[in-house]
Amino acid sequence: MTTNAPAYDAMISHVRQTTALAQAAGLLDWDQETVMPPRGASLRAEQAAALEDAVHARRTDPRLGDWLDTLDPTTLAPEAARNVTLIRRSYERATRLPAELGAAMARASSRGRITWSRARAAGRFADFAPALKEMLDLKRQEAACIAKDGQSPYDALLQDYEPGMTADRLIPLLESLRAPLSELRAAIADARAHVPQPEGHFPADRQLALSRLLAPVLGYDLDAGRIDLAVHPFCSGSGGDVRITTRIDESDPLGCIYSTIHEMGHALYEQNMPEDTLLEPRGRYASMGVHESQSRMLENQIGRSRPFADWLWPRFRDAFGAAGLADADALYRAVNRVHSGFIRTEADEVHYNLHIIMRTALERDLITGALEVDDLEDAWNTRFEADFGIAVPNATQGVLQDIHWSQGLFGYFPTYSLGNIYAAELFAAMRTQIDDIDGCIARGELRPLLDWLTGNVHRHASAMEPEALIEQAIGHKPTAAPLIAYLRDKFGRLYGL
Amino acid sequence: MTTNAPAYDAMISHVRQTTALAQAAGLLDWDQETVMPPRGASLRAEQAAALEDAVHARRTDPRLGDWLDTLDPTTLAPEAARNVTLIRRSYERATRLPAELGAAMARASSRGRITWSRARAAGRFADFAPALKEMLDLKRQEAACIAKDGQSPYDALLQDYEPGMTADRLIPLLESLRAPLSELRAAIADARAHVPQPEGHFPADRQLALSRLLAPVLGYDLDAGRIDLAVHPFCSGSGGDVRITTRIDESDPLGCIYSTIHEMGHALYEQNMPEDTLLEPRGRYASMGVHESQSRMLENQIGRSRPFADWLWPRFRDAFGAAGLADADALYRAVNRVHSGFIRTEADEVHYNLHIIMRTALERDLITGALEVDDLEDAWNTRFEADFGIAVPNATQGVLQDIHWSQGLFGYFPTYSLGNIYAAELFAAMRTQIDDIDGCIARGELRPLLDWLTGNVHRHASAMEPEALIEQAIGHKPTAAPLIAYLRDKFGRLYGL
Repeated sequence: MTTNAPAYDAMISHVRQTTALAQAAGLLDWDQETVMPPRGASLRAEQAAALEDAVHARRTDPRLGDWLDTLDPTTLAPEAARNVTLIRRSYERATRLPAELGAAMARASSRGRITWSRARAAGRFADFAPALKEMLDLKRQEAACIAKDGQSPYDALLQDYEPGMTADRLIPLLESLRAPLSELRAAIADARAHVPQPEGHFPADRQLALSRLLAPVLGYDLDAGRIDLAVHPFCSGSGGDVRITTRIDESDPLGCIYSTIHEMGHALYEQNMPEDTLLEPRGRYASMGVHESQSRMLENQIGRSRPFADWLWPRFRDAFGAAGLADADALYRAVNRVHSGFIRTEADEVHYNLHIIMRTALERDLITGALEVDDLEDAWNTRFEADFGIAVPNATQGVLQDIHWSQGLFGYFPTYSLGNIYAAELFAAMRTQIDDIDGCIARGELRPLLDWLTGNVHRHASAMEPEALIEQAIGHKPTAAPLIAYLRDKFGRLYGL
Repeated sequence: MTTNAPAYDAMISHVRQTTALAQAAGLLDWDQETVMPPRGASLRAEQAAALEDAVHARRTDPRLGDWLDTLDPTTLAPEAARNVTLIRRSYERATRLPAELGAAMARASSRGRITWSRARAAGRFADFAPALKEMLDLKRQEAACIAKDGQSPYDALLQDYEPGMTADRLIPLLESLRAPLSELRAAIADARAHVPQPEGHFPADRQLALSRLLAPVLGYDLDAGRIDLAVHPFCSGSGGDVRITTRIDESDPLGCIYSTIHEMGHALYEQNMPEDTLLEPRGRYASMGVHESQSRMLENQIGRSRPFADWLWPRFRDAFGAAGLADADALYRAVNRVHSGFIRTEADEVHYNLHIIMRTALERDLITGALEVDDLEDAWNTRFEADFGIAVPNATQGVLQDIHWSQGLFGYFPTYSLGNIYAAELFAAMRTQIDDIDGCIARGELRPLLDWLTGNVHRHASAMEPEALIEQAIGHKPTAAPLIAYLRDKFGRLYGL
């Protein structure tokens, strides 16, 4: 889109090229995780670093400052003005960070990954503590540099993942989940139900074939995407090229199915944003929380629903046989088994947010200085036992389990739970507007649901701030109530509470 | 490598990053030709263009001029001085071309591809002539800009593909092949031998499996590479990540086998250059001709040799059965069938260079102005009948068959034949230095041959000019004599001449 403002046109052309370069960097990452030969890593590191430098140089290019100074946003169309807002935000964020601090963080992150990985293998938090202290010190400095208008340090960091969100709203939202989930968890544990899981050998090629079968039903366009294997499932790309990966365990078919569905949720968002603005800031995804709402809704509200089990069961049986399950109902129970455990990435819907609420509280305390790194392991273990009812046996299954903090990702964790909260809100709103939603899901006719998501979420991209986007879609400010109601209802029935 | 010259260190660091970015661009190309989803093309075009712009901006960065002005090469170690020579050459080449001319050529190339493709489908040269005139006009302007020290326009263009080569040496070298090859071709045609080809159905998976079986024997390291399918076979990457593609026709297994061997020849060169200088100019391949010598030697002097047929035959039979061939000798004859035809890419060893010699003469006349575009089709057809003994039936099988000129690739064609000439010279030299070379090939023990190539060619990368590199390896100035002798001997025996 061009306007009558030459400074805008020059600026948006610059920004579009920068985004295209950042996408090229994303492709290098995808390649490294999926198809790159083992010996390619060292040269790839040089290529990725060169591309990152080029993108960073463009994001801090002083011409951006000049263009922004020259422009009068009130003379621009709203779409262009929105781009200007987002470009100004990104430029100020990038230029407020001194280059030396950015470089120090990159080095600390690179070292931190190695230190964390070794400490986790050894199960010794003390081995990781010095690296975490260094990273935390850098993050505090970063927060001080980038904070604007009296923003708190944690709020400043949050903006990278959830623009517009503040701890004042975030923390009460998350904490309102804590007691209900902890109670639900305890009640389910007390019920001591045995929930059979599929048993047998589940060949990789059949798992992959079933993954591909999910694509047309869930609306994932394989002409604009592909499914590959990777150690950690992820989604990469945008528009006409949105790729997902999945993982395969030949003794457990559910991991592949549900990580595929999860990533397809992310992919739908990316495939359905308007094609003509994919390289503009207003044309990108709204936030990590909104992104996660799309993946979690597809995975949980839809994929782990009773009607979806009706659709899935005959396909599951065609692929693998009954695998010890009696019927669609048994499959529904199997995919919703609640079991206590220590690891976030293996957690079910009831436990998952408890993990996040705890990490969010701890990382905020680390950033504010209310908690010191030397006290982190104790704080983790105490809080874990209070919320989960079991004692952490070692640091590997406790405070060392996640890579995030070693990489300086403070403010990232809460977007997982925001995604769950938004997913429940969006699904509840959608249910009131679509006739026979359960019948649609059971028949694998998801088009009305997908169209609703595209119309209310995907196609808006970043036209609004993320919370405003959700509010417009659901008609009120989002709360945790629909998520709590959904979980109580679903697991109350499943476990006869 | 760092030195005591700060200007050199800054410059080489800049150049290394530029090379890494260019490699990232290469990965985008590989991805597009192999795994990219169909709908990814338009966004990919933006990404590739952004990366190309970034690379071009770095190659013409005025700081390069400052660094080059500051440096005194006589104070540098020979390796650093060689880098300076190559950087100066590239910088001067890049900055002599006005930006508007570069942009006009990019547009003409993009339009030319479409025009050429349509004209070829319609078989009408007149449809392509205007686009070719425009491109030729731009290439003449380009040659005038980049020519230095009284260089002829065609010599100036040659430098992009074969540094140091001039038409004065190139043309007599190629023309010395013309009469012997034309005579050999006629003698084989007169012999009217029937050479059976493998017959049957050759499943894609078995062709791919056989391709992978070739890797360890030919020294292609699959831990530093991979084999995928693409419409046109190619080799991409360097060092620890060198990927090849192959093509599969289920009615003909030889196309896959020999294009795989050809690309593995390119890949060996890329995999075996010294790892620590892969991002420096002196650490890249010497020229297109030298690159092609590696692929052609592996494909022809080794892959289509009688002893290699002994190695290949049992593997071929295991994969496909006998397919109507009696024994290794029949396979040897099948892979060396000489047949008349119009298409360069389908040509055998006897016809191939006749195609190239003709194209080189025609494109040189186009650049010098001795031939006008309007007369090109007639000139092509007349020359073709003289050299090949058959009349061109239409432009699709004649002057429109190759994409090169539509893309402005003038000076590229002769490197194919230079590769064949160098391959024959190198193989003849290697034969005098390795005991029982035929026995090694028959047993699939190619290590002595591969070590010879690595020691004499690969590991030198661009330490010398390409012709000097070949001269050092063979001990004299290269001529076409070994190629003529090789072809006369091989095909004389095969066709009882």
